[in-house]
Amino acid sequence: MGYEEYTIEGRNAVIEALRAGRPVDRLYILDGCNDGPVSTIKREARKRDVQVKFVGRDRLDGMSTTGHHQGVIAKCAAYEYAEVSDILKKAEDAGEEPFVIILDNIEDPHNLGAIIRTADIAGAHGVIIPRNRAVGLTATVARTSAGALNYVPVAKVTNIARTIDDLKKKGIWIACADMDGQIMYDQDLTGPIALVIGSEGDGVGRLVREKCDMICSVPMKGNIDSLNASVAAGVLMYEVVRQRQMGGNRDI
Amino acid sequence: MGYEEYTIEGRNAVIEALRAGRPVDRLYILDGCNDGPVSTIKREARKRDVQVKFVGRDRLDGMSTTGHHQGVIAKCAAYEYAEVSDILKKAEDAGEEPFVIILDNIEDPHNLGAIIRTADIAGAHGVIIPRNRAVGLTATVARTSAGALNYVPVAKVTNIARTIDDLKKKGIWIACADMDGQIMYDQDLTGPIALVIGSEGDGVGRLVREKCDMICSVPMKGNIDSLNASVAAGVLMYEVVRQRQMGGNRDI
Repeated sequence: MGYEEYTIEGRNAVIEALRAGRPVDRLYILDGCNDGPVSTIKREARKRDVQVKFVGRDRLDGMSTTGHHQGVIAKCAAYEYAEVSDILKKAEDAGEEPFVIILDNIEDPHNLGAIIRTADIAGAHGVIIPRNRAVGLTATVARTSAGALNYVPVAKVTNIARTIDDLKKKGIWIACADMDGQIMYDQDLTGPIALVIGSEGDGVGRLVREKCDMICSVPMKGNIDSLNASVAAGVLMYEVVRQRQMGGNRDI
Repeated sequence: MGYEEYTIEGRNAVIEALRAGRPVDRLYILDGCNDGPVSTIKREARKRDVQVKFVGRDRLDGMSTTGHHQGVIAKCAAYEYAEVSDILKKAEDAGEEPFVIILDNIEDPHNLGAIIRTADIAGAHGVIIPRNRAVGLTATVARTSAGALNYVPVAKVTNIARTIDDLKKKGIWIACADMDGQIMYDQDLTGPIALVIGSEGDGVGRLVREKCDMICSVPMKGNIDSLNASVAAGVLMYEVVRQRQMGGNRDI
């Protein structure tokens, strides 16, 4: 991955980036802006010798790629993608069963950001995305992740199906989220697991789906046939959290 | 109950729409325009709690479909807002305990749309939003809801705290989503319930929070301090679904 300059926009995202020790090259703050979060940002920037530049709104608007900079934009080096092995090592270091999220072609950066954010909070060890077609780690993803991108390793792989084979060889169970599977409450989601979440339009691809050990569904009562991808990912991740916390699914 | 957004343009047309009590989501007025009819429009808008935005001529010209906006454009929902009583009746008709979602100032239309979508699929009977400050049922909300807006009644109320009092009188328990409550797995969420979800930045307001019977938290393991609002809503709604399906929370 060559060097690329990236922007991180929005107050929370910038604060998290500074606190996580990201290589921020330069910080742009709206001139005259002095409220609490901005003061925090200035203090964190000073601590880390980050150069701060005060600029007008037009300048910030011009630099912004998301349109939601909230008066703060940080320019920094591109995110380093992790390797799948880094994700598994994170689980090992924590003494936990691996809990991995695999995204089969999520195209909406807001969904990718929200999923990375949920992965951090739910305690997943990392997120795997495909190299082609899907969205990468853009400024919008960083902002929507609310800073979680600094903590959750994201690996980019050439072939999701092959990665699944590798994970299975390591004893990890693959659970695919889909409408027509077994209700998640009736499945055992404890143990080493990778959750596969499909794209917004098409769900999980056939080839990937066939490799999965289980198809997991959320109960559906209404008229609409699918949840938003980041909501589905959140609901499933928290079913894993619940079952692990309760020491197994007692209803099976 | 279908949804369509339309514009009403020109001074008389807008005054009539306001006086007739049409569901105006937002009013755009040419910045600096202060003559008699425009003052009347502003006064009528204030009376009805309609959000007013002052914009430049270019912006109005761009929004106009008739080319004759006279400095005033109203965006209306062809969607009919429901009443809270409609939501409770929907539960009664289904022979189910009421399951209501209350949104305390969600400002992001994508989040509102995703929450309405989840409400449909999880089997909630309706969504209550405040009249002021929060986003209304705009075209973006309709699109993000993936059609759920046609099935889920959405009521707009003047005072969320007062609505909560009314719901409590009807025997409905109020559960507020927040970071520092009791873990949701340890609470009984069966029975008639309204889940209160706070705004993206500030969470649930103090006044509303104090009226709630329980504060519900999701377990948090990571470094980020809150889930995206629509993900949090989804995770909590599905904990209600799970507990209802399992006939109560056995762990209490």
